[in-house]
Amino acid sequence: MTSLFKHLRIHQIFGANTDVGKTILTTALVRASAVKGKNVFYLKPVSTGALEDADDLHVTRYTTQKAANFTGAVQAECLFRFDEPVSPHLAAQIKGEKEGRSRDSMIPSDETFVNAIANRILGYANKQQTTSHMYIETAGGVHSPALSGTTQADCYRPLFLPTILIGDSRLGGISSTISSYESLLLRGYIVDAVLLFQDDYYQNGEYLKPYFMDRGIHMATIAPPPMKLPDSKENFISTDQYYASITRKIDPENETAAQSVSNVVNHLDKCHENRIEELASMPRRSLDTLWWPFVQHGLVNGEKDVNVIDSAYGDFFSVTNKSSLRSRDERWCGPSDETSKVLPQSSSAPSGSLGPPTNILTPQFDGSASWWTQTVGHAHPSLTLAAARASGRYGHVMFPQATHLPALQLAERLVHDGPGKGWASRAFFSDNGSTGMEVALKMGLRAYTTRHAEGGELSTKEAKKKLGVLALKGSYHGDTIGVMDACEEGVYTCEWHDAKGYWLDPPTVSIQDGQVIVTLPPSLSSASSATSHQQKVPSLAWVYSVEERLQTPLARAYAFHITNTLESLKQKGHKFGALVLEPLIMGAGGMIFVDPLYQRVLIDVVRNRSSSKPNSSWSGLPVIFDEVFVGLNRLGITTTSSILGVKPDISVHAKCLTGGLIPLCATLASQSIFEAFLGSNKADALLHGHSYTAHPIGCEVANETLRLMDKLSLSDDWIAAKASWSKEDESESPVWSLWNRDFIVAVSGLPQVKEVMTLGSVLAIKVQDPSGGYTSQSAQNILQSLSWLSQSDDVLSSAPGGAPFNIHYRTLGDVAYFITSLNTRSSVIRSIEDKIWQALSTI
Amino acid sequence: MTSLFKHLRIHQIFGANTDVGKTILTTALVRASAVKGKNVFYLKPVSTGALEDADDLHVTRYTTQKAANFTGAVQAECLFRFDEPVSPHLAAQIKGEKEGRSRDSMIPSDETFVNAIANRILGYANKQQTTSHMYIETAGGVHSPALSGTTQADCYRPLFLPTILIGDSRLGGISSTISSYESLLLRGYIVDAVLLFQDDYYQNGEYLKPYFMDRGIHMATIAPPPMKLPDSKENFISTDQYYASITRKIDPENETAAQSVSNVVNHLDKCHENRIEELASMPRRSLDTLWWPFVQHGLVNGEKDVNVIDSAYGDFFSVTNKSSLRSRDERWCGPSDETSKVLPQSSSAPSGSLGPPTNILTPQFDGSASWWTQTVGHAHPSLTLAAARASGRYGHVMFPQATHLPALQLAERLVHDGPGKGWASRAFFSDNGSTGMEVALKMGLRAYTTRHAEGGELSTKEAKKKLGVLALKGSYHGDTIGVMDACEEGVYTCEWHDAKGYWLDPPTVSIQDGQVIVTLPPSLSSASSATSHQQKVPSLAWVYSVEERLQTPLARAYAFHITNTLESLKQKGHKFGALVLEPLIMGAGGMIFVDPLYQRVLIDVVRNRSSSKPNSSWSGLPVIFDEVFVGLNRLGITTTSSILGVKPDISVHAKCLTGGLIPLCATLASQSIFEAFLGSNKADALLHGHSYTAHPIGCEVANETLRLMDKLSLSDDWIAAKASWSKEDESESPVWSLWNRDFIVAVSGLPQVKEVMTLGSVLAIKVQDPSGGYTSQSAQNILQSLSWLSQSDDVLSSAPGGAPFNIHYRTLGDVAYFITSLNTRSSVIRSIEDKIWQALSTI
Repeated sequence: MTSLFKHLRIHQIFGANTDVGKTILTTALVRASAVKGKNVFYLKPVSTGALEDADDLHVTRYTTQKAANFTGAVQAECLFRFDEPVSPHLAAQIKGEKEGRSRDSMIPSDETFVNAIANRILGYANKQQTTSHMYIETAGGVHSPALSGTTQADCYRPLFLPTILIGDSRLGGISSTISSYESLLLRGYIVDAVLLFQDDYYQNGEYLKPYFMDRGIHMATIAPPPMKLPDSKENFISTDQYYASITRKIDPENETAAQSVSNVVNHLDKCHENRIEELASMPRRSLDTLWWPFVQHGLVNGEKDVNVIDSAYGDFFSVTNKSSLRSRDERWCGPSDETSKVLPQSSSAPSGSLGPPTNILTPQFDGSASWWTQTVGHAHPSLTLAAARASGRYGHVMFPQATHLPALQLAERLVHDGPGKGWASRAFFSDNGSTGMEVALKMGLRAYTTRHAEGGELSTKEAKKKLGVLALKGSYHGDTIGVMDACEEGVYTCEWHDAKGYWLDPPTVSIQDGQVIVTLPPSLSSASSATSHQQKVPSLAWVYSVEERLQTPLARAYAFHITNTLESLKQKGHKFGALVLEPLIMGAGGMIFVDPLYQRVLIDVVRNRSSSKPNSSWSGLPVIFDEVFVGLNRLGITTTSSILGVKPDISVHAKCLTGGLIPLCATLASQSIFEAFLGSNKADALLHGHSYTAHPIGCEVANETLRLMDKLSLSDDWIAAKASWSKEDESESPVWSLWNRDFIVAVSGLPQVKEVMTLGSVLAIKVQDPSGGYTSQSAQNILQSLSWLSQSDDVLSSAPGGAPFNIHYRTLGDVAYFITSLNTRSSVIRSIEDKIWQALSTI
Repeated sequence: MTSLFKHLRIHQIFGANTDVGKTILTTALVRASAVKGKNVFYLKPVSTGALEDADDLHVTRYTTQKAANFTGAVQAECLFRFDEPVSPHLAAQIKGEKEGRSRDSMIPSDETFVNAIANRILGYANKQQTTSHMYIETAGGVHSPALSGTTQADCYRPLFLPTILIGDSRLGGISSTISSYESLLLRGYIVDAVLLFQDDYYQNGEYLKPYFMDRGIHMATIAPPPMKLPDSKENFISTDQYYASITRKIDPENETAAQSVSNVVNHLDKCHENRIEELASMPRRSLDTLWWPFVQHGLVNGEKDVNVIDSAYGDFFSVTNKSSLRSRDERWCGPSDETSKVLPQSSSAPSGSLGPPTNILTPQFDGSASWWTQTVGHAHPSLTLAAARASGRYGHVMFPQATHLPALQLAERLVHDGPGKGWASRAFFSDNGSTGMEVALKMGLRAYTTRHAEGGELSTKEAKKKLGVLALKGSYHGDTIGVMDACEEGVYTCEWHDAKGYWLDPPTVSIQDGQVIVTLPPSLSSASSATSHQQKVPSLAWVYSVEERLQTPLARAYAFHITNTLESLKQKGHKFGALVLEPLIMGAGGMIFVDPLYQRVLIDVVRNRSSSKPNSSWSGLPVIFDEVFVGLNRLGITTTSSILGVKPDISVHAKCLTGGLIPLCATLASQSIFEAFLGSNKADALLHGHSYTAHPIGCEVANETLRLMDKLSLSDDWIAAKASWSKEDESESPVWSLWNRDFIVAVSGLPQVKEVMTLGSVLAIKVQDPSGGYTSQSAQNILQSLSWLSQSDDVLSSAPGGAPFNIHYRTLGDVAYFITSLNTRSSVIRSIEDKIWQALSTI
């Protein structure tokens, strides 16, 4: 749940290895906090080893002595204890074997484990009336396996707690300390301090201090503990003296302060204060400096409208809960006690009438998949590591006439074993969908003009300049001026916009009152007397079985209408250079689910052939598929070609391509398109390229994403979802959704809802709104309760740590849409459905 | 030097920690190779600890016994030996203290150290007539400091050797093994195998085997060595038996093969073969699948024209040396001996008449800084770690109305303490210079049309559509169609190009025959009778002291000509919406160094004010600075504003912004530009945004780059370079260069050279070529010897490992340019100058 409370500073302690003094230094931290007058909670989620050495006993023993002049109350707890002194995952297994139980019955899932910790944090936070501290000690090294076998650095990540790394003072310890730090950094952890024992022989501290200082990280070396004495009483006294010496309050200016754990505690307090202050300042600073995309700053109502994202994990942002941040409730702040005298603070605390303290951070479901990009969730370690290894091997390298493995492997994968399979010959890289579509348009126009140059009709520049695209109303291909010219004029277009083309009004697919409907636009329904405005059809599976529908009267009506329209456009002098489509869904245009049969027939008419057989050369017009949004499994299919039953001549892929991590785009082209640029004149080449073309990081992340997609397609969640959308005869449907079929049907029957549609990870809900349009706020208004936190549930949520969460969602006028990652767990999707249902059904 | 030979397989061995069995397993690898009949070279670059335990003795002892049935010759060597069993950097210091010498005198630089290893590799490779193996054992853990104090993972990186990681079988060893692996991965190393001792109690191998298998890495657990026996002879026998047992040749199908070091050796041989085969196949596969930017594929002459980049480091690519790869010289390949009988191969080897074997990989200086992006060199660890930590914390997160620290910090830095200082109010993020310029144009046009809407003249869409830019001939702002429309028609423009604006022909600056010259275009020299076509001026410092030149006759001539031209354009009905400039240098247009005085006067005339005082609102036309290439220290200055003495209203920053790692662009705008979009209507907002807008990785890498730039500006190389370009009175010049002043003067006097110019890291050489133009090959032809390897030098080169290197350079017709990173060492730049000098002076 990413716990952050003003009055409770929490740190998790990771070790550079086992046996580096993690428990001793945590004990010292606990005691130093208590000396400072803080209540302290030491939590050891998992402990292995014999009971007499158990870490929490150690902590309790040396921190609860009232003899010393400290006043904070100390509490220690262990959640899971195992006797065997081995890695937790193995200890649990051994215990299970001894008790005759299976390993699985001994071991909580990562989710249960993390929720248990989050729960203890919340319990402690609620109980504390004064500023308090909490230390959570992990087991072994940063990557030692947790109970489930997931390594701890990954397992604890959903909690995103500030971190202390206990370094290794032994021979080899410089290496293990730095490597451990790098593993923490790869998970994005905030490392507030590195501590290790002073060792005058190996002098690791002397090396590591400037190393970490250079990286802005506080490092302290602490005197090592005394030798263990055989007599237990003498040993206790000597150990207690040791703790007393390293935890006594000292003047921070004192030169020995650097070796004092008390000084570290002061530093950690400062880190905590700074973090909260920074989070509190971010809305104002952002309002003063950022210029957001697609945002009317004049409509931003001050700081509360700024979504401060502190971190993200899986399907959730961790955002600040503004009301708690702005709270001036001094109970939770306390005076800055850097140098103040320690006073028993509980007596001065107000009564509990203010209610429980609020977590400053709240999970927020990323309901638009961060502009349709998220594929395997935020901060997926595999993608981070892919980015890291490409960065470490290449950085970026120049691409023209060069090659490197990440780009070559990606090109081969896309062309031969991805969306380009069976038709594409080449991959051209650029930085985003918009630039990729600019490239696609340049390809299409060149192919067309080259072929038609002989006729003489395109010999003038003016004639070429006026070549339009044939496309659909509602198209959108990105924000650069060139691709905007491939769309009709609208709110998005700028002063230079020059609409080049003709946009057909297509029939659409939706679910209304549980019934699948094909809706014909007026032009089509009037032109074809055989069809009514809205046609009820058997099922989604039926709609998307395009090949089977080709012989229906509707297909003939489509063909007739398209042919007539094109003929009439020809007579009016329209000239087209490319057919440009967003197959199946026009996204930014309003989540318009186009009847796939119409797109198929349109392509067939333009190509003047009805066969789906690939032709060696393009015919009629080069056909461009803008699959930036709809491709690469966003709709549960690799490419929309499999639904439409035809291949494009050019296709564009971005968004999911890099798993939702960094910008990259690939434009694929057939050999006949490529050959339009081939020759002996440099000026005839495709003279387009961005500085970071085919940057290795993007390509390597894309390769990793495609590997993860392959695995996902075999996952239980996908298999179950596909089965739930199968045809009535239980055969496989060409389309399916991660969203629940019954939920879709139910929502489509709500009075506020006009229609619903879903494919793959996409859910679109159009609300009743006679005005509509991009600037409409209707969907936003109806669903606004999704952005509120409902604290009422006692049940653990499906968010990290089980905390209550809200939903960040985007609307396009009267359409609200929700997009999950491709690996969003079904339990999370079910809870989103519940929230949407509540929001819509209780209006 | 990134050594890769067909006949010599080399692996470096890193340890997950000290004392994990690195020497024992390396010994076993050496012996297993020898058992396989290979000659083996064991190199221990640094050894610490008492002589009797010294690692190379261990290896020698157990691998040179002729009693066993192996035939390969074993050679062992240590380059630096220290008695003290501590980290090498400390051991060297202690030895120095004992011998009364300074630490520095004991310690080679990283470069010297790496060159020494490269030299031993080359020596061994030259000596071997049959396929051989080499193992290089590092000291301690992956990040244990090397002699200089640089950690080994970084220190060995220039050699980029395939790697074996020896894991840790002890308690905690799962963590240290995985962390060490991640540290290697952050440096891009190819990890071919992970080995560790079998331990039936801790079972680290059982955990790690599926872990690494999932990551495509071979892992093997090997039986641990026997207990040390007190009697040395008995101990020898027992140890020898141990080695014999784990290195005997066995059937790979045998179930114990997984625990055999011989099996690992077979796997490593396979990795080596695969790597070479892959490198050999890459040109053909690339020619078949990639569509390169700005490349006429019809002019690519087959595989030899493909630059295969295997890795990159600092200023150098490591590229394949095609002649050696294609060599069918069987001497270096040998039969695949996976299962073949071991035969003494030397007898069947041909005589040495074929000459020394060639390294398959060659360093290649990245002479265009990878399209002007490289800032701190390829694969800089700080940038990799910055990318990793942002990826681990956020992945990518949705930006509209949201904020996150990396983006906010970057915006604040750019606006308040970067190129926007003193005038900008907002940062808008996009993905590359081209999209950033599209945004800038949208900003400028909107600001202009909003202000001039009242007059009525811009009330129609047609009028807005025809608004042009005022700009200079030779401008180039990227490849998207919109920014292309801000440029004149040319080879780069596509069918839809619609030139919108007027392009003034500017005067330029160059050095000819050692003399700094301002060249006026015909229009200007004829219009202003007071000036001749070419003006000799005192110095570069003088030319770029713009403020001081404002009162010169030339300034008045510029102003007169510009004013007249604008008046005449106005009369012809031209309407402008923005002034768009690449300050100081027009890059892609041909590295045209514009007289800065002209750009300053142009701005002043357009703004109708001569004061450099910032105005609160734009005047005349919004002024856009395209600083994508010239900004952020590429020319040794943060922003060109400091030279021109005026601030823009909008500026665009990319390329160096992210240090040359990944795409990101920031468009900065003044408050008055921002306000043109402000209102209560959503449709009036800047409706532009890319999916990955302000992606955290890009922002964090940019923040890190800016931090590194701050450090660089204080570096010795910069201070020395600035001093060398100071004025005659030794006061600071407004401009300076990393290139040598005398070299520039000398080159400018060569007969083949027309003119030369330099600023910061940029060097442009225009060759004598009456035709010129983008499609000219003249510069390419004259300098082609730079792409050849000169093997003649006995001297170590400045490339990694000291290997001979060639230069990858780009030309723009008759202009060749060379761009270094901002931290390219002066010794490297000197060697590039030498090569350029040789190429140009020996024609």
